[in-house]
Amino acid sequence: MANDTPINITPIGLIHCQLQTAGDTPKNFTESEQTGTLEVFPEYQEAMAGLKVGQTLVALFWLHEARRDLLKVYPRGDKSRGLQGIFSTRSPMRPNPIAISELKVLGIEGNMIEVFGVDVFDGTPLLDIKKKI
Amino acid sequence: MANDTPINITPIGLIHCQLQTAGDTPKNFTESEQTGTLEVFPEYQEAMAGLKVGQTLVALFWLHEARRDLLKVYPRGDKSRGLQGIFSTRSPMRPNPIAISELKVLGIEGNMIEVFGVDVFDGTPLLDIKKKI
Repeated sequence: MANDTPINITPIGLIHCQLQTAGDTPKNFTESEQTGTLEVFPEYQEAMAGLKVGQTLVALFWLHEARRDLLKVYPRGDKSRGLQGIFSTRSPMRPNPIAISELKVLGIEGNMIEVFGVDVFDGTPLLDIKKKI
Repeated sequence: MANDTPINITPIGLIHCQLQTAGDTPKNFTESEQTGTLEVFPEYQEAMAGLKVGQTLVALFWLHEARRDLLKVYPRGDKSRGLQGIFSTRSPMRPNPIAISELKVLGIEGNMIEVFGVDVFDGTPLLDIKKKI
């Protein structure tokens, strides 16, 4: 493929949780005590086989409201730390705003996965679920 | 956004390394002793500010040759383990084949980052670089 060929990705689900806006979210999963529910769209439910309560999974989310045009940010909005290149941060603002969360599985029912450690807000599209290494 | 709205992502770079095909690659970064070079496209170079030699970064890659139509696989091709849902594996085959690698920075020069721990093959598109938590 050419270097600059756009790539199409399609959400495989979304999250339901009490966090309503980007401002409500913990800075990352290690600082979260929030629970929520991953809804896997029915056409992908078969790919959930083998997921187990108690395991930690890796979820990739698409931060659909994040700015994609910034290359430097003040980490956590703290201007005392100076501008940093976004590739040396975990800022949600980045050219491809894909977030990585490590979530503990509290329950599984059909296509719904109850999880702990949520750091994205309600309705955020889910792109992938992986085993944690 | 509607649940099924396709999302456009654009590579921010690519990897150069000696691994030439998917068959050559280590199963994941924890099993790799391969080095390679991340080329960040010049329009994103400013976002590299603050990256440091010796740190471990998180790289997201687009596995452009991976099949996207499978929901179950034999992990590592081992049929004795039975078919597993791809969300409980690290298989490259998944609806959105985005790989997570943790890479140690060996050197930085301009828009090039020499790294250790490579588990993707030469030319694989790079989607993002993050600080490791």
